Amino acid sequence: QMPDVAAGRKRAEVCMACHGENGRAVVPGVPHLAGQNRDYLAQALRDYRLAQERHNPTMTEMAKPLSDADIDNIAGFFHGLRAEK
Amino acid sequence: QMPDVAAGRKRAEVCMACHGENGRAVVPGVPHLAGQNRDYLAQALRDYRLAQERHNPTMTEMAKPLSDADIDNIAGFFHGLRAEK
Repeated sequence: QMPDVAAGRKRAEVCMACHGENGRAVVPGVPHLAGQNRDYLAQALRDYRLAQERHNPTMTEMAKPLSDADIDNIAGFFHGLRAEK
Repeated sequence: QMPDVAAGRKRAEVCMACHGENGRAVVPGVPHLAGQNRDYLAQALRDYRLAQERHNPTMTEMAKPLSDADIDNIAGFFHGLRAEK
């Protein structure tokens, strides 16, 4: 179903500390998320949540409390941001 | 040192099958790379090369033959592409 981008924005507030309010990373080594492929973002979050395929302690902590709906909404939110500055 | 973007473009030809000639993924579930953070791209490639942190058989195959210079050049190439369509 269509992601709820407003809910995604709210849920993504904690992500913005590193990934930026506009989805452009503010921390070196952290990926830009703005305009990224939605299903890629959702799959990455699911993998982090399970600490499967992708082993990143910080991201696993971030993803653990997320529901499937949260994940789709967050992915929809970052996908919708303009990729350019 | 500064990446050799032309060499990176050449070495990245094999990547374009999935990541697109302009760094915008042409395969579902595959991330856009255009405009991505250079050090993030380089670190991801190094992790794939070692099949460490990130376990993705396709990407490990792709990264295995890459030298450190290849990795920096490829990261520089995709970073330099315009992120928007």
